[in-house]
Amino acid sequence: MSEIAFQDNYPDELSHCYGCGRLNPDGLRLKSYWDGDETVARFRPRSVHMAIPGYVYGGLLASLIDCHGTGTASAAAGRARPDEAPLRFVTASLHVNYLRPTPIDAELEIRGVIKELKEKKVVVSATVSADGKLCATGEVVAVRMPENMLR
Amino acid sequence: MSEIAFQDNYPDELSHCYGCGRLNPDGLRLKSYWDGDETVARFRPRSVHMAIPGYVYGGLLASLIDCHGTGTASAAAGRARPDEAPLRFVTASLHVNYLRPTPIDAELEIRGVIKELKEKKVVVSATVSADGKLCATGEVVAVRMPENMLR
Repeated sequence: MSEIAFQDNYPDELSHCYGCGRLNPDGLRLKSYWDGDETVARFRPRSVHMAIPGYVYGGLLASLIDCHGTGTASAAAGRARPDEAPLRFVTASLHVNYLRPTPIDAELEIRGVIKELKEKKVVVSATVSADGKLCATGEVVAVRMPENMLR
Repeated sequence: MSEIAFQDNYPDELSHCYGCGRLNPDGLRLKSYWDGDETVARFRPRSVHMAIPGYVYGGLLASLIDCHGTGTASAAAGRARPDEAPLRFVTASLHVNYLRPTPIDAELEIRGVIKELKEKKVVVSATVSADGKLCATGEVVAVRMPENMLR
């Protein structure tokens, strides 16, 4: 695995995301890394993240896939253009298939595979596993953040 | 609008969801209601729910669409069989299209339309608007909660 999380390369003003911003003290602070040509993040749900007792709520998995997907997009764009500043991507579309109830008392492993890499658009497929069992799959279509989004 | 939120009809043991459970003190506590044949929920993001300053993170919108979708599924099943106890649905798949940055300082309106209603499967399309502008669309495929999910 790479040593610095993708999200820790974001500049300060782009590091407040509830899902993955290192400067959001209340958020999930997801950290994503290279693992060969794939990307990986690990996350341990808190007890409040339940759907029903014992299982995590679907929105958490959607959030993890979303932030891992945009992080992967940024990292993939950075690998393709290593001399340029990191680019921030935002989500154009998100799809999640929930395959089985996801236990809340396990560390979740989120993995990403880059399916398409263009200058302004990256498509990432993702999986979420717990205890070695595949719990959800998903896809993120990430696009370059419009410059006018930064106020 | 109907007076009692769909989620407030869930029995106690199914009311702990981070997204919509009335018994989850840390959660979003989304409340969904009938509005004619459509369903509606309103939600005011907290400042921590940001993606970048000024805008909400995508996972929040996914969570709201998810819980509004499963709530709508439960309510639609209940309308079809008014003499039976409310049924709880879980998400089989979730799709969200992010159409424009969603402001964090506005009340969000989440609307649902029932596209398909079967005994064990309900498909709900959803929209999220802020200040009258459509920010996201989505679809939830909800299925009856397996009885063995309750521990």
